[in-house]
Amino acid sequence: MDRELARRWLSTAYEEARAGLAEGGIPIGAALYGTDGSLLGRGRNRRVQDDDPSVHAETDAFRAAGRQRSYRGTTMVTTLAPCWYCAGLVRQFGISRVVVGEAETFHGAHGWLAVHGVEVVLLDDPACAELMREFVDGRPDLWHEDIGVDG
Amino acid sequence: MDRELARRWLSTAYEEARAGLAEGGIPIGAALYGTDGSLLGRGRNRRVQDDDPSVHAETDAFRAAGRQRSYRGTTMVTTLAPCWYCAGLVRQFGISRVVVGEAETFHGAHGWLAVHGVEVVLLDDPACAELMREFVDGRPDLWHEDIGVDG
Repeated sequence: MDRELARRWLSTAYEEARAGLAEGGIPIGAALYGTDGSLLGRGRNRRVQDDDPSVHAETDAFRAAGRQRSYRGTTMVTTLAPCWYCAGLVRQFGISRVVVGEAETFHGAHGWLAVHGVEVVLLDDPACAELMREFVDGRPDLWHEDIGVDG
Repeated sequence: MDRELARRWLSTAYEEARAGLAEGGIPIGAALYGTDGSLLGRGRNRRVQDDDPSVHAETDAFRAAGRQRSYRGTTMVTTLAPCWYCAGLVRQFGISRVVVGEAETFHGAHGWLAVHGVEVVLLDDPACAELMREFVDGRPDLWHEDIGVDG
């Protein structure tokens, strides 16, 4: 896909991540875009805010998009490489494309998605990486809890 | 694990599935059990009831269990073989074991979990299979929507 468009869509996810940080949450944001480029849903990690471990950024954006009969042609945009949980969501529902802000602070499962036919666009965005790096440095406990790394 | 215990735990998930059916929902239930055998959370598919595509039975049980610092030694019990989304959840959070009611009406990703070190106990439970078979026969539209199969 066009990288300029991918960067524009990433800015929506990045806004979500910043909003999450401002709420005291884990700064990861996501957005689901439709085949026609319309925004279907946007969301952010809500572990801290809602005290809910099941709400990663991608699952929140997916939820916000409501019930859809098909995800063919849709794009999940996320500030951070998707974990297995979120990659599983993408694969199960047949989301066609994933735009990843950065995969530097967390490796993620986007390679697995690519192997299984999902188009992966990795943007190596410095602002996304900086936001996450600062958070992980300051709150490694929360970050490890969020990805199931035993303390 | 002991199959009698697995069957006892499965009955919790089955109750959830029945409750979901009674609400007009997709009859899939789940429960998360702790290392010591205590029930950490139970839940059911809520796509119809909450109009929320992100709540599969396993993610609902996971949410109900609240924030946990570690999932080592826990068991996810589910009436139906987990999809990629729910299998991804299990893998990411290091849930140690999955008890599957049946994998006849839906193949699921439990084989992938087994390859990645998760203990999988498949019970081939006739009541779980019957419940799901009847539902899929009656409402294939809802079922396909729930697993992202394009109509």
